[in-house]
Amino acid sequence: LNAADQPALVLFAHGARDPQWAEPFKRIQAAVRARRSGAVVELAFLELMQPVLADAIKKLVADGHKRITVAPLFMAQGGHLRNDLPKLLDSIRAAHAGVEISVLPAVGDVETILNAIADWLVGALPH
Amino acid sequence: LNAADQPALVLFAHGARDPQWAEPFKRIQAAVRARRSGAVVELAFLELMQPVLADAIKKLVADGHKRITVAPLFMAQGGHLRNDLPKLLDSIRAAHAGVEISVLPAVGDVETILNAIADWLVGALPH
Repeated sequence: LNAADQPALVLFAHGARDPQWAEPFKRIQAAVRARRSGAVVELAFLELMQPVLADAIKKLVADGHKRITVAPLFMAQGGHLRNDLPKLLDSIRAAHAGVEISVLPAVGDVETILNAIADWLVGALPH
Repeated sequence: LNAADQPALVLFAHGARDPQWAEPFKRIQAAVRARRSGAVVELAFLELMQPVLADAIKKLVADGHKRITVAPLFMAQGGHLRNDLPKLLDSIRAAHAGVEISVLPAVGDVETILNAIADWLVGALPH
């Protein structure tokens, strides 16, 4: 299997000054790699942490990937996903003609994740 | 059952200028209410949206609630949860002596939610 045939996934998170902030995203990265052996899963950030999205994708393209999926690990759709991300993608796509870049919905728009959150909250409620 | 015996849950999210941003939190609120009939579940925000946390808790206390659980619907622990939230809670607790206010971990620190996110990502990967 050469890189061009392998899907690459970029977990795109906000970023923060606090290094501990990246921990859950690293755990999700490890969990996806464990579930799909050989999957290429990288982290990228909007701000305050490295690499930024453009750099993460540049590296994947340099490695030969032609199909890249961006998963925005944001709770909800706001200005970052509705304004900032499309602008970033316009410029990234222009720099990498022939590379297919798709974008998943926000975490808060995925029914199974909302259900997992609701189940956790109900379990955490005092009786 | 009087209000003092009823657990109250506050879903605490960041807030955004974009009104659409609140949608997933409203859906989680509805899902928790559907799973635990009679549960008191309110939304509150750190900034940019109303009500802020202090106002949401003030209203619950005025309604007679003595046990309030704050669920931070943030992807990860960063400055907002490690610095801003404790400061807010200090001032809120000082204003409401005798009310027990507990705080759940961030969404990204909950194993079942990380697993739901990882499962979704694996399912979304191209083959």
